[in-house]
Amino acid sequence: MIVGIIGLGLIGGSMAIDLKRRGFAEKILGVEADPVNAGAAEKIGLADEIVSFDECIDRSDLVVIAVPVGTAVKMLPQVLDRFAESGAKDKIVIDTCSTKSQIVRCVHYHKMRKNYVATHPMAGTEYSGPWAAMPNLFDGRACIIANAEESGAKAVSTVERLYDTLNMRPLYMNADNHDVHTAYVSHISHVTSFALALTVLDKEKDEKHIFDLASGGFSSTVRLAKSSPDMWVPILSQNRDNVLHVIDTYLDKMKAFRDAIADYDEDKVRELIEEANRIRKIIR
Amino acid sequence: MIVGIIGLGLIGGSMAIDLKRRGFAEKILGVEADPVNAGAAEKIGLADEIVSFDECIDRSDLVVIAVPVGTAVKMLPQVLDRFAESGAKDKIVIDTCSTKSQIVRCVHYHKMRKNYVATHPMAGTEYSGPWAAMPNLFDGRACIIANAEESGAKAVSTVERLYDTLNMRPLYMNADNHDVHTAYVSHISHVTSFALALTVLDKEKDEKHIFDLASGGFSSTVRLAKSSPDMWVPILSQNRDNVLHVIDTYLDKMKAFRDAIADYDEDKVRELIEEANRIRKIIR
Repeated sequence: MIVGIIGLGLIGGSMAIDLKRRGFAEKILGVEADPVNAGAAEKIGLADEIVSFDECIDRSDLVVIAVPVGTAVKMLPQVLDRFAESGAKDKIVIDTCSTKSQIVRCVHYHKMRKNYVATHPMAGTEYSGPWAAMPNLFDGRACIIANAEESGAKAVSTVERLYDTLNMRPLYMNADNHDVHTAYVSHISHVTSFALALTVLDKEKDEKHIFDLASGGFSSTVRLAKSSPDMWVPILSQNRDNVLHVIDTYLDKMKAFRDAIADYDEDKVRELIEEANRIRKIIR
Repeated sequence: MIVGIIGLGLIGGSMAIDLKRRGFAEKILGVEADPVNAGAAEKIGLADEIVSFDECIDRSDLVVIAVPVGTAVKMLPQVLDRFAESGAKDKIVIDTCSTKSQIVRCVHYHKMRKNYVATHPMAGTEYSGPWAAMPNLFDGRACIIANAEESGAKAVSTVERLYDTLNMRPLYMNADNHDVHTAYVSHISHVTSFALALTVLDKEKDEKHIFDLASGGFSSTVRLAKSSPDMWVPILSQNRDNVLHVIDTYLDKMKAFRDAIADYDEDKVRELIEEANRIRKIIR
């Protein structure tokens, strides 16, 4: 099968590596808008050919849209339009975006809707671009397939085979539920890390000391603050209502901590920490 | 040298392992108030003998206080008193606590002050107790030596040799500065993790989904929320003013994010993320 990947960054590039070497794709066609990234992707060997957007759609059996979600919502209807124009009934397009409600909504009434499968492979690092692509990135992680009932059965089964090749566990979910859940387990983590980095950078002018004193705890808590604005601005924008709801809950919890510490109320601080410790049940 | 370690948990137990096997201590005497922990420490072999507090002070050349800081501030004067009573002029006591201002202040006028060296080895995990002790925990990390000028030169040089054995980089710092810096690079990270765990646990009743959807990012951001209240209640209490100051800055940053997202102000969100990305300069 010929797989076209639009966006050869962390996600698209890592998919390219494993889909090729594990035999799912006989050929990878890559589309990369940024010329520097395109050159790097070609040198690293992420794609067999770098082609134009139109050529990618026309020559691929399966197209992967792996660009920031703000761009993806504009690109997906163009891909389905081109499928329709060229009479390509069996071609498949998927996206890999971290928010699903809006992208699913934007093609809900498209006549080629069944050729699209909405997915979110829950894997990544805080790095981006073709240099961040790596083998085995997806192994053992979960992949959401959203609103599968709106896609064609054959398309879904091909996409399941694709994610099986990447060693991912499929999870089926409604797009709106997906966006609520990811606000809690992914998006808020990024916001708290960004805020932590801003706090420390703002006050700690003597950067040498941050570096010296930062033990493993700080590094792991602040790691996500290195994440790219190109990816995160549109995510926070598209999942605005859910993210705001979670931020408000978070602010309440933080204020409860602040008040207990300010009041010298050690019993309350202990109670809050013991409650937080219940996360041990869930995260090993 | 005979080393007495009071508190055979993560820090005390890990020190015991490496000080013994690397030849700094010919014998480790352990004191452990909790009988279950004492039994475990003995079985794991963290100490050659479990002894009473008094016996530990009397028989050791160097005593390590590795208990939560609330207990340590009461214990340190007792150790120095017993040094004085028994005429032990050359014995040394150190503590390993995460806050330094209060503990240093509480023995400032003690006649045996020169026998005490205030230290903070900046290493650890989110686990606690003798089961959490491990070899090589301290390798390559920084160790603060606070107010070294108040300690005797010979005591400081012995303690430097101890931390050199643990492969730690010594950093010399005023105790008050230490507490400001650690509020930024350690204590606030714990508070943000606790608040994140509380937020997610509060709202996400379907714990299966947290587990399924939690990618590496969430796990690393929430990891510190597993930390023990026995350790953290006294730290937040003793470093109250600095911690409150940092929490207030953090709340301001979080509100700036919230407002930008609420206002659909993508330029502002991008500006905040780009500013947060500067943490890349400091944390690899």
